[in-house]
Amino acid sequence: MIESQADLHSLVEAFFSNSFSTDNPLITEAVRRMLAAGGKRLRPRTTLLAASACGADPREHLHLAAFMELIHVATLIHDDVVDRADTRRGVNATAVDFGNKISVLAGDYLFAWIFKNVTASYPAPIPHILSATLADICDGEVLQLRALGNLDVGVPDYIDVARKKTASLFAASAACGALAAGGDAASVEALRSYGEYFGIAFQMLDDLLDVCADEATIGKPVGNDLAEHKMTIPLILALRDGNANFSGLVERMYKQDDASVAGQILTTIRENGALDATRAQIAAHVDLALGALAPLGPSPAHAELIALATGLLA
Amino acid sequence: MIESQADLHSLVEAFFSNSFSTDNPLITEAVRRMLAAGGKRLRPRTTLLAASACGADPREHLHLAAFMELIHVATLIHDDVVDRADTRRGVNATAVDFGNKISVLAGDYLFAWIFKNVTASYPAPIPHILSATLADICDGEVLQLRALGNLDVGVPDYIDVARKKTASLFAASAACGALAAGGDAASVEALRSYGEYFGIAFQMLDDLLDVCADEATIGKPVGNDLAEHKMTIPLILALRDGNANFSGLVERMYKQDDASVAGQILTTIRENGALDATRAQIAAHVDLALGALAPLGPSPAHAELIALATGLLA
Repeated sequence: MIESQADLHSLVEAFFSNSFSTDNPLITEAVRRMLAAGGKRLRPRTTLLAASACGADPREHLHLAAFMELIHVATLIHDDVVDRADTRRGVNATAVDFGNKISVLAGDYLFAWIFKNVTASYPAPIPHILSATLADICDGEVLQLRALGNLDVGVPDYIDVARKKTASLFAASAACGALAAGGDAASVEALRSYGEYFGIAFQMLDDLLDVCADEATIGKPVGNDLAEHKMTIPLILALRDGNANFSGLVERMYKQDDASVAGQILTTIRENGALDATRAQIAAHVDLALGALAPLGPSPAHAELIALATGLLA
Repeated sequence: MIESQADLHSLVEAFFSNSFSTDNPLITEAVRRMLAAGGKRLRPRTTLLAASACGADPREHLHLAAFMELIHVATLIHDDVVDRADTRRGVNATAVDFGNKISVLAGDYLFAWIFKNVTASYPAPIPHILSATLADICDGEVLQLRALGNLDVGVPDYIDVARKKTASLFAASAACGALAAGGDAASVEALRSYGEYFGIAFQMLDDLLDVCADEATIGKPVGNDLAEHKMTIPLILALRDGNANFSGLVERMYKQDDASVAGQILTTIRENGALDATRAQIAAHVDLALGALAPLGPSPAHAELIALATGLLA
């Protein structure tokens, strides 16, 4: 039984290197480049650990796990078009190298290719879960776009968006791994729920790193979310706990498009307690993720799932 | 039994007016606007006629038929992003009114919504056929993009692209209608094949109208395909049967980006026999479509399918 995180990561990498190709060389190249640029493969690892926690050999579910990463890759390819981002994970975005036209089509083709393969190989409800998840991701992205620059967005609105745009795919990754392994209904729901809470905490950590990490660590410029006028969790908490002067600064940047105050906003977020408040929110969701795992019996995979979630607290 | 074309059109329109909505109001609005802009609803009509030709009541398959039009609408929404088109069917493109970001997400959401509903309601192999069809459409669009400005593209290459990008959805519309109606394997294949040949002829007619219709009829500027450096069937045939002087003109426009010769190219296509050669290609594919229907017994729906195909000869 292989289930240490390092082993699973190697399995997934080997699968992508050796097995991934589509009928369209240009699309295959675009996808391979996104995969080669790195990433922690957290979604496929969640699938493999969920399958293992339900008693299956994770090596039998590599294809299913790979589809989870590929859904993520397809959304990243489209996100590059959407945001006109110049870099993604430190390499040129697909849209920059191949043009917007190819990026839209490559993402569409990849979604279609995934569903073509999933509908050919996996029984209900797995194809339905994956298409519902993609709908959730898009819905969440649209909600996030509409919330750009809206200083009234609160923590519950934020969590609703994070659940849809990020956590839904972690929830599906875990649930489908459990389903493919023949897990019982309680185990499937426990793992789905784990994935959902894990995903919310993961998105919160991503937001946190945007205001307090350095570019080399996160592979994109610090303060990138602020520059895009996103309502991130540290900003929402800083606004909630801050004074009128801080709200005024954010209004200048988000409503009057004055980017010159970005540094002041970053400094205030770092100093007014918003980072600790964000860490508390992350810890609360990690706790919920761990609590969700309670119905599962002990196993090495169970322990790895716990380690994956507590890793977000580092 | 309702199966005249006018009746089916009304049924489909009523379904879209009364029943279509998604959980996301902005996406619902974007889709409704595309639907309200018109269109002949040929894909859903093909589904309903195929179901009827296999002995079913078409009214029982309105949802399935609607999904075919919605796949088409989703590709149009993404095509607007891709081509930066300003108008589509005479109204503003989604991308113009809502922005590229929303257009990419609205198309993605619509694809996901369709698959979510199809996987919930229709047995194998219908979900698989639809996802394979979407992969074909994207593959065909990428092939077409790569063929832009390539004067060596011949009729077989053209037909390969048309089969994927346009005919695959007509083939799937007909095959899924037959499958949902419980048609036998021979009828399903007859109708799939009809849809494929119909779709190729339909794409050829679309190309023909671009060089010989007027803007009011086709809802977009005449010569639009030429302006995009597309290798259309009239152009391919005009090059095949034309002289070196004509090839030189096309090279000036397609390779040196000199749009001033567009009028001369259009005039030559209209005068060197390419329009008649295109009509002959359309007629040949209409004949193949009619031949494909041969295994089906006579029925009013069968007669309507014949009328739909011969209508491309008008």
